[in-house]
Amino acid sequence: MALGEFELIDRYFRRPVRRAALGVGDDCALLQPSPGMQLAVSTDLLVEGRHFLSTVDPVLLGHKSLAVNLSDLAACGAAPLAFTLSLALPRADERFLAPFAQGLLALADRFDIELVGGDTTAGPLTIGITVFGEVPPGQALLRSGARVGDDIWVSGWPGEARLALEVFRGSLSLDEAGFAQARHAMECPEPRVALGLALRGLAHAAIDLSDGLLGDLRHVLQRSGVGAQLWLADFPRRAPLATQPLPVQRMCLLTGGDDYELLFCAAPESAPAVRAVAEQAGVAVHRIGRIEPAEAGLRVLDETGQAADLGHWSGFDHFKT
Amino acid sequence: MALGEFELIDRYFRRPVRRAALGVGDDCALLQPSPGMQLAVSTDLLVEGRHFLSTVDPVLLGHKSLAVNLSDLAACGAAPLAFTLSLALPRADERFLAPFAQGLLALADRFDIELVGGDTTAGPLTIGITVFGEVPPGQALLRSGARVGDDIWVSGWPGEARLALEVFRGSLSLDEAGFAQARHAMECPEPRVALGLALRGLAHAAIDLSDGLLGDLRHVLQRSGVGAQLWLADFPRRAPLATQPLPVQRMCLLTGGDDYELLFCAAPESAPAVRAVAEQAGVAVHRIGRIEPAEAGLRVLDETGQAADLGHWSGFDHFKT
Repeated sequence: MALGEFELIDRYFRRPVRRAALGVGDDCALLQPSPGMQLAVSTDLLVEGRHFLSTVDPVLLGHKSLAVNLSDLAACGAAPLAFTLSLALPRADERFLAPFAQGLLALADRFDIELVGGDTTAGPLTIGITVFGEVPPGQALLRSGARVGDDIWVSGWPGEARLALEVFRGSLSLDEAGFAQARHAMECPEPRVALGLALRGLAHAAIDLSDGLLGDLRHVLQRSGVGAQLWLADFPRRAPLATQPLPVQRMCLLTGGDDYELLFCAAPESAPAVRAVAEQAGVAVHRIGRIEPAEAGLRVLDETGQAADLGHWSGFDHFKT
Repeated sequence: MALGEFELIDRYFRRPVRRAALGVGDDCALLQPSPGMQLAVSTDLLVEGRHFLSTVDPVLLGHKSLAVNLSDLAACGAAPLAFTLSLALPRADERFLAPFAQGLLALADRFDIELVGGDTTAGPLTIGITVFGEVPPGQALLRSGARVGDDIWVSGWPGEARLALEVFRGSLSLDEAGFAQARHAMECPEPRVALGLALRGLAHAAIDLSDGLLGDLRHVLQRSGVGAQLWLADFPRRAPLATQPLPVQRMCLLTGGDDYELLFCAAPESAPAVRAVAEQAGVAVHRIGRIEPAEAGLRVLDETGQAADLGHWSGFDHFKT
């Protein structure tokens, strides 16, 4: 069935405007930011074959497309407000669009945010989302605020998404339950918005894990002008990751990518408060290292306390892997 | 040369932050909207082979990618503030990126706006831009405000971009000077930002011409609940369009697409003021029709005053052509 661009927007994506001053359907959307608040903006482009497999359930793809953007807001401690959606589609296929919109808008509803504008065109399947959030001036969590002596924390169970990817690549196998869990981590990440908001005023720095923990942590270290020590023994792991050979575990934990967990730094005396807000947000958090002076660089101690060789590990880079 | 994603951003797109609270390089950009202003947001996705030819000069492509988005702000009467850029690239090719960034940032500089964030990834060449502008509450130019009796105006010289496209398609030929002019219209459109700002409080409705005048006008008519009469005799045309056979002229004028001119509606008594602000903005404007009651539908009178048959004309649709 040949749906036109405008019918397509109408049918799947138009909803009554609630909070925005003007939503989909004019040259621009109009947002009325709360007085005095800063607007946090983040944008991500997802390309088929690069960020998702052509076989993924469109409901989950819709969810993930928005989730990875909300994760950026979470890492800034910003409260989500609205988003725009750009879609390039090989064809206007209802069997894709209906479930894609369903997954996307279900997550939007959970965070009470609305789709305020977008663009659709023919082209190789590509999903571009820009999210807007708000944060009181001076309270955004930045990459640049880590201080020597800070604890390094991570939320959730990083590394599991990578396990699923390796199964799809055929390089390892998991039992049915293990694969289901890993696949869920890869295809249906949960943005840590409540945790990000709760960490305002508590964390000194934060970043969301998308390109692999080591590479993402390096951004924090560079921006903050500090070094770090990580303790592999303290990294969270559960089945199916915990039952993999140690080199696989380490690869997934340190360079996995696609985690959409928060890595954040906070003063040691804030540890009880960190645990309390994480529990309230319903998210597991683990202390996995410490911020050191810049001269110390980045060191990883393995499960036996030995310094691990990081030579062949680096963060995921879209033009290098 | 293999440039990584982060080096790539650094080398071509990072500049000191001026107006934004925080620019490229964290999880989010932070913008501080002016107190009380509404934020206007628009997003466009440009796909190679669909919105631009692979042979286009990257400097011009950089310009046009931002220009078509600024045109949406212009159509809302919003003052440009900032933008984000998402790029999918087959490879990190400096011979493309350096001139692309040059064309993009030169236009950004002219409007004193900055690149505040973005995303780069490997993939089929795709350019996603989201622009932000601001407008006082209630003053945005919308598609929904046209009133019966309003004059319909158009800026610039619509139809010329389509002429160039037809030359590229091999369906017509132009002399060297004519082709240069048409090609410039297609590859280097000028967003009518100053005109859009000046039309606040003067125009009742506005839209930017991107999908063809008839189709874009129909959006205004639908949203405003009105009809219209267009007078082909009064449409602006100059060489090389004016020297084409009449059917070609009409096709280009009414359905050309890619014009990025403003079509707007204003009360007849505002005509002198419209001419004055357009002259101040340095943009030609022409009165090409009148808003009628909804029952009248959309009628086009040809150069002899006869009703033209619109049966085979419709606006450009990315999934129908």
